Amino acid sequence: MSIKVIIAGFKGRMGQAAYQMVSGDPELELAALIDPFAEETDVAGVPVFNRKEDLVGLEADVWVDFTMPKVAYENTRFAVENGFAPVVGTTGFIPEQIQELTELSRDKGLGGLIAPNFAIGAVLLMQFAAQAAKYFPNVEIIELHHDKKKDAPSGTAIKTAELISENREKIQQGAVDEEELMPGARGANFEGMRIHSVRLPGLVAHQEVIFGSQGEGLTLRHDSYDRVSFMTGVNLGIKEVVKRHELVYGLEHLL
Amino acid sequence: MSIKVIIAGFKGRMGQAAYQMVSGDPELELAALIDPFAEETDVAGVPVFNRKEDLVGLEADVWVDFTMPKVAYENTRFAVENGFAPVVGTTGFIPEQIQELTELSRDKGLGGLIAPNFAIGAVLLMQFAAQAAKYFPNVEIIELHHDKKKDAPSGTAIKTAELISENREKIQQGAVDEEELMPGARGANFEGMRIHSVRLPGLVAHQEVIFGSQGEGLTLRHDSYDRVSFMTGVNLGIKEVVKRHELVYGLEHLL
Amino acid sequence: MSIKVIIAGFKGRMGQAAYQMVSGDPELELAALIDPFAEETDVAGVPVFNRKEDLVGLEADVWVDFTMPKVAYENTRFAVENGFAPVVGTTGFIPEQIQELTELSRDKGLGGLIAPNFAIGAVLLMQFAAQAAKYFPNVEIIELHHDKKKDAPSGTAIKTAELISENREKIQQGAVDEEELMPGARGANFEGMRIHSVRLPGLVAHQEVIFGSQGEGLTLRHDSYDRVSFMTGVNLGIKEVVKRHELVYGLEHLL
Amino acid sequence: MSIKVIIAGFKGRMGQAAYQMVSGDPELELAALIDPFAEETDVAGVPVFNRKEDLVGLEADVWVDFTMPKVAYENTRFAVENGFAPVVGTTGFIPEQIQELTELSRDKGLGGLIAPNFAIGAVLLMQFAAQAAKYFPNVEIIELHHDKKKDAPSGTAIKTAELISENREKIQQGAVDEEELMPGARGANFEGMRIHSVRLPGLVAHQEVIFGSQGEGLTLRHDSYDRVSFMTGVNLGIKEVVKRHELVYGLEHLL
Repeated sequence: MSIKVIIAGFKGRMGQAAYQMVSGDPELELAALIDPFAEETDVAGVPVFNRKEDLVGLEADVWVDFTMPKVAYENTRFAVENGFAPVVGTTGFIPEQIQELTELSRDKGLGGLIAPNFAIGAVLLMQFAAQAAKYFPNVEIIELHHDKKKDAPSGTAIKTAELISENREKIQQGAVDEEELMPGARGANFEGMRIHSVRLPGLVAHQEVIFGSQGEGLTLRHDSYDRVSFMTGVNLGIKEVVKRHELVYGLEHLL
Repeated sequence: MSIKVIIAGFKGRMGQAAYQMVSGDPELELAALIDPFAEETDVAGVPVFNRKEDLVGLEADVWVDFTMPKVAYENTRFAVENGFAPVVGTTGFIPEQIQELTELSRDKGLGGLIAPNFAIGAVLLMQFAAQAAKYFPNVEIIELHHDKKKDAPSGTAIKTAELISENREKIQQGAVDEEELMPGARGANFEGMRIHSVRLPGLVAHQEVIFGSQGEGLTLRHDSYDRVSFMTGVNLGIKEVVKRHELVYGLEHLL
Repeated sequence: MSIKVIIAGFKGRMGQAAYQMVSGDPELELAALIDPFAEETDVAGVPVFNRKEDLVGLEADVWVDFTMPKVAYENTRFAVENGFAPVVGTTGFIPEQIQELTELSRDKGLGGLIAPNFAIGAVLLMQFAAQAAKYFPNVEIIELHHDKKKDAPSGTAIKTAELISENREKIQQGAVDEEELMPGARGANFEGMRIHSVRLPGLVAHQEVIFGSQGEGLTLRHDSYDRVSFMTGVNLGIKEVVKRHELVYGLEHLL
Repeated sequence: MSIKVIIAGFKGRMGQAAYQMVSGDPELELAALIDPFAEETDVAGVPVFNRKEDLVGLEADVWVDFTMPKVAYENTRFAVENGFAPVVGTTGFIPEQIQELTELSRDKGLGGLIAPNFAIGAVLLMQFAAQAAKYFPNVEIIELHHDKKKDAPSGTAIKTAELISENREKIQQGAVDEEELMPGARGANFEGMRIHSVRLPGLVAHQEVIFGSQGEGLTLRHDSYDRVSFMTGVNLGIKEVVKRHELVYGLEHLL
């Protein structure tokens, strides 16, 4: 029997990608679409709504949410209260809200997922990096993005460094008498590890974690070529939350 | 208190590397060295022997073995019987021997390790590849070695493909109507996965496992520049076997 | 003074990309747009035509052509006869046609370019590979494409191997007693060089040429993430043909 | 007829590698070996000397020099004056000395080579990078070395950046409103280009130059695994200087 899915924010770019993904998977079935900006009343037979309140009582299993930060919490709360297991890619939650939603889901015995990053490959890379750090305390991160990106290092690189840091022996890397002939050459210093940010046109979003040890190297690389990559994670999320009885924060908890 | 180590085969290349590694680690202490070809009676105060029988009754914790296939089984048996936890890099064991040694070690409550590959990075790569294959069934392996290597694909590549195969959904990769304009272009076919072997002077031993999915890629790479890399694994083995009560086959069981 | 450009086939995907590129470059100016399927009579003030004959007598410098194989020759001939230097990305020319158009352009003293590949990076990679092959006769090619690609190896890989082959010492690579435990592992054999074709979802179009020599390696890699990359080459083509007096085949002749 | 070669400094590590290389090439013949620390009078029939003065009048074509900075100039001058074409890997020359030796060689009509870097791959990479920069002004350099290296960036990275800089359009790379959340993340700034220095155990000496443009990337990578790589360049140097009539500084002038 197929899983019945609601997509909130289906007119947006991510919502559209989710619509394509759900439509194309025979194990999934669209139950409803919501978007305040939708003018149609149905899309290929699937009913379209403008307000979430119109979905009370609808028969559906999962609520996929790609809406906006300011409504993400209200939407997720609504989903849980109405028995729709939430799979949420919208950002903007504060820790207290996640805590509260988790408790609410536990009371209801309903699974759920709020994920800042749906790229399975990126999540696996972080997990592998954390594991490898136990044996290889010497590590550097190179993240490469398009040249319109404003911040450096990327959020993913910082998150990766934090995870590594929880597992690796604390050491200051590089030669003791290391000297930067040009400032910044050795990158950013994160507890003795180094992070390097490359920005070039043409690039999308890439990350390399390089471990070095006597006579060997281990490199983990993730390449994100297109946002459509998130849909593999959304698909996994939909199929996992219906088997679970509590909301989790982070795709890694479903892997 | 430091761990007391015997090195069997200390005159060989790997034995010498083990000698350097043990000497340089303050948590380890050399108890004895053995080699049938040794002519000296001590090295820097550490007693040297030609025959294993001379070590009966010696106070030591671990027996590191880098000798020769024809004596590996006898040596390991001797070590276990005399209470030295074996860490064996010598090859040539048949499954029945490993089975028997494992049982013997269990009877004695003694830890031990027989490992065909001591490069931690290579072992981690295989584990990570097996894990990633659960989510990414599309994968190809590229292994790159110096051009004196006779066999293709490498043993490590085949072992990696086997481990991946235990975890991934069975699929035939590539386009359905794929066509090789030149035979061999698509590499070796291992249950639908492809393996490519590159041979060039200058290379040492390298392996890349590339996973592809909608809009993203995940690449795991191991570079072996020098056999000294094995010593990180030997060091780990020594420190782990003293905490255990059974011999294991494969470094992965100690990670 | 800006270069006046006509775009033929402006309604197609490549034509649209060319329109964006020309519009955005202050050194270029749109003189006219042509497409048999266009229904508008102007785009942002630029006149639109359905038939090339309507452009006789128009004041313009360059004719950019992204139309269809069956009209490519006629279009290019028309452009040269009317004094528009052609920059042609449409395929389907036979050698005799290129020969004839080259002679015609020479008579007219008009520059021009017909190019099967407008990605400057790919063309540079081929040139560099040919140069490096003089010093490094040991080389392998790995090309990586999305898994909808039917043919292996790619046309670019074969062209690269041909160029390398003109410059390198003829040798059979790999160990003399090399043995394939699984057929195809060593890839396709092109005059002793090996070519490997990787096909995975997520990938776009990538190529690596790896040279190996005693103790060192040199790797050249091109990544094509998007067809928009061709526009850097079209832009270069437009600016170069106006300085020249003969049509050339292949972007490499303008580098 | 084979080229007759003298090796100065043959007892050192590089001298030994040169000895092996010359001995193994049927087109070359050892004429003499010199080293102040040599105690033997011949090696496999080749005469050994302690002082260069003893070689006056010897019949030889090329003087290979891997000695020490303080004698490099005197040695090279001696070689040229005695008709031995110098191939010098020793460092420590000041520009005036190179100028003077070049003039002296021109007077004698003798070829010669003084090279700070004999790795052909590294020299080719620099040349290719300079060429590519004409078309791709956006570029970053990542150099990776073992963690005993003191200075960052490496001399080769700085030299590469200088060569690129002579050919590329001056631009400031990255987003206009780029922000470093952690200082150093964006690397060292060399005229708007960025240089990143990675230091890890296990690594030897590696450099990547990454060019990015709309929708594409071009990466040039050199891996130095072993100093023996220099011998390909020394071999080339020996065979080229005997055809030339002037000393040059830098292997690139013989490619």
